[in-house]
Amino acid sequence: MQTYDTQETICAPATAPGSAAIAVLRLSGPEAVVIAGQVFLPKKRSINLSEAESHRMHLGQLMDGEQPLDEVLLTKFVAPNSYTGEDMVEISCHGSPYIQQRILQILIDSGARMARPGEFTMRAFFNGRMDLSQAEAVADLIASNSEASRKIAFQQMRGHFSSRISELRSKLLEFASLIELELDFSEEDVEFADRHKLRGLLDDIAYEVGRLRESFATGNALKQGIPVAIIGKPNVGKSTLLNALLNDERAIVSEIPGTTRDAIEDTISINGVSFRFIDTAGLRDSDDQVESVGIERTHQKIRQATIILYLFDISQTGLEEVAETIRDFQQEVGDNTKRLVLIANKIDLLDEIPHHFRNLVDLETIFVSAKRKENISMITDSLLKSLETSPEEMQSVLVANSRHYEALSLADESIQAIRKGIKEQVPGDLLSIDLRSALHHLGSITGEVTNDEVLGEIFGRFCIGK
Amino acid sequence: MQTYDTQETICAPATAPGSAAIAVLRLSGPEAVVIAGQVFLPKKRSINLSEAESHRMHLGQLMDGEQPLDEVLLTKFVAPNSYTGEDMVEISCHGSPYIQQRILQILIDSGARMARPGEFTMRAFFNGRMDLSQAEAVADLIASNSEASRKIAFQQMRGHFSSRISELRSKLLEFASLIELELDFSEEDVEFADRHKLRGLLDDIAYEVGRLRESFATGNALKQGIPVAIIGKPNVGKSTLLNALLNDERAIVSEIPGTTRDAIEDTISINGVSFRFIDTAGLRDSDDQVESVGIERTHQKIRQATIILYLFDISQTGLEEVAETIRDFQQEVGDNTKRLVLIANKIDLLDEIPHHFRNLVDLETIFVSAKRKENISMITDSLLKSLETSPEEMQSVLVANSRHYEALSLADESIQAIRKGIKEQVPGDLLSIDLRSALHHLGSITGEVTNDEVLGEIFGRFCIGK
Repeated sequence: MQTYDTQETICAPATAPGSAAIAVLRLSGPEAVVIAGQVFLPKKRSINLSEAESHRMHLGQLMDGEQPLDEVLLTKFVAPNSYTGEDMVEISCHGSPYIQQRILQILIDSGARMARPGEFTMRAFFNGRMDLSQAEAVADLIASNSEASRKIAFQQMRGHFSSRISELRSKLLEFASLIELELDFSEEDVEFADRHKLRGLLDDIAYEVGRLRESFATGNALKQGIPVAIIGKPNVGKSTLLNALLNDERAIVSEIPGTTRDAIEDTISINGVSFRFIDTAGLRDSDDQVESVGIERTHQKIRQATIILYLFDISQTGLEEVAETIRDFQQEVGDNTKRLVLIANKIDLLDEIPHHFRNLVDLETIFVSAKRKENISMITDSLLKSLETSPEEMQSVLVANSRHYEALSLADESIQAIRKGIKEQVPGDLLSIDLRSALHHLGSITGEVTNDEVLGEIFGRFCIGK
Repeated sequence: MQTYDTQETICAPATAPGSAAIAVLRLSGPEAVVIAGQVFLPKKRSINLSEAESHRMHLGQLMDGEQPLDEVLLTKFVAPNSYTGEDMVEISCHGSPYIQQRILQILIDSGARMARPGEFTMRAFFNGRMDLSQAEAVADLIASNSEASRKIAFQQMRGHFSSRISELRSKLLEFASLIELELDFSEEDVEFADRHKLRGLLDDIAYEVGRLRESFATGNALKQGIPVAIIGKPNVGKSTLLNALLNDERAIVSEIPGTTRDAIEDTISINGVSFRFIDTAGLRDSDDQVESVGIERTHQKIRQATIILYLFDISQTGLEEVAETIRDFQQEVGDNTKRLVLIANKIDLLDEIPHHFRNLVDLETIFVSAKRKENISMITDSLLKSLETSPEEMQSVLVANSRHYEALSLADESIQAIRKGIKEQVPGDLLSIDLRSALHHLGSITGEVTNDEVLGEIFGRFCIGK
């Protein structure tokens, strides 16, 4: 099960690459303190790193042979009170990429090796500092770019989701042991496991697993950001609308000095939820071949979106044309998981809104002036409504990881098979197979059951240094 | 002199922007510990931040109101034992840009304000933790991208240069006070300052200032990287040569996971010294107008370079043509600070090197095969030779900052004027003016004499968080 040798001491930068005031490098493993002691000259010469207490910062020089390379702050963490659960050392140096690289070389020359992606967290998992779902949450937390995605990851990291899964699993385990007991006494034809009680327990478990599975739609949307396509003919005001949305007082555009290069264009966070605005060409603009390519792309993007804002210029568009577009759209998409919202723009050009538009089919229609920023908040309200998750629900455990969703789905299948088996009074040894399968899938979420391939895939997606 | 209010508590990210395992945020100022205490919930509830000892890391939660935002490690630094000399707090959080941004908002809501570029280091300067030249060295250290530039910055940060300047200045100050004393007793026509001794002292100072000024050429080249232009006709093997140089065993190409976006293309570090290779079109390739633009650009680049490698294909080029190019070049450049090295490439195509090429004018000529990587080390040796600085000299104090060079030059002018004045036996009050001027210029280097404009310019170039 040890994919990597944990007897080796690993090192890596822990902070983002690039020039900055400081950078932090990490060492973890049995030789971490010895290696650090070889290359660190404390300012207070009396300090002996191997005897120094845990969690204390020391000023000193990082030595390159006989010469000082940099002035650093060094912190030792004594196992098991560290991120990895092993002895660790953090070196805070001046944030020059050259200096970081040189320190890594010095550490490697002194016996450490470069860490692989996610190797620090993998060691934390091996050492029982966190379960697999919590380890995955660390990566999600680092990647979180909105309040909603941070919250889901943070709750998962703190073990809310893990403990729910463990609870379900231990109930199933109890059930399973009773069934196994029956098998041992199979010749006597006893039933230790009260079938009626078991059925009740299975109903509870099935309900819980089902609820968790269902939460994935919301959880994943909150984690990834909800894709919104704005479609409409040219010049109906798509970019003006996007700008108006960006300027809405509740819309927070990610902004921290220097991070703009990481920002995804046109992602707006409303009340902590990310909406990813997908720019599109019109839906049925042209017969021109070049245009057709654009239209095909629009259709693709509509397929990716969960909300579609159909924007039209109310001063230029007849009711018939709008109705026709809606028919086209419904034919095209025919998918009731997508929401279509009509946005009638440029109401500033009309004295009043034509009466027949007021009763426009049975679709939600919002009348706005993107230019004058009128009624923009009605759109943001509508976007938030599409979450169908109350603030209370957002506090509860949400599944946001597709690996967990898959495992839950497989566990659900097995649980349904057990329910059916009990109903049909199949023998215990058959029930037992499905029970083991359900236990396996639930256990794979927290890593109680795992294998190198799964671990490799999970930790391979981490960044180096985590 | 206080450009910014140091009564305010400032905060900023200290590590590079972007997603990473961790990020570090800094707080500095009188309220740093109080503000941190308001938003930090230690895991060991018994810990009271205001009473906690300096330099100790505490695990806990960073609170967003009543809800935990992230698990963090927090370190308190008690004044004056911190980078700025003020009370400081460092928060090591998960490296999500969103989390960093949110923590900064929480800190600002709790009474801190965002730091301006260089404000932490400026406070360190105000609080006497370092002088101005050392503060400038911090920025240089962060920007250093080779062993040579790191070493210069590191020595300057440790105060080697500052103490040399202070020494010179205190000698001058002694001199000045004697002259001033004479002025007080001017009616009695005494000479407290032994003119002969003074002349000796001035000679020493002038020699030292001159030596420091002269070191700027080397210091600046080492700091910035030495610009090398490779010129030659198309297909003489310029890129092959560049690749061969890149692959030379002594050439270290800056490489750290994820930092490639900061790497400047074609910068090679040989024995710790950066050489910036400037790619050029040929020197006299074409009469074509489009080509001419390229040629004009070549001339510009030659002007920027300090070393020019003229590459030709020895199997295709006659001696006459090479000689002509050299004449062109010498006419064009006419600048003996530039070094021209002839590189005769493609010796692999010849059985032996034609005898007349062996005596090629009086210029250094290196015969290589870029393709077969033959004699490439002769080029790197030649590049290193152009430094004209022995390893011992590189250990000594080098001036690498143009502000310092300018101040030294102005100080030098004043010192020459004093020497002239003494020789011509001008009265003490006239000497005194030049003396004050020399003292002023030397003092401006270490910041003993300074003003808001100078400080604004120096610290404005820092990154935020330093």
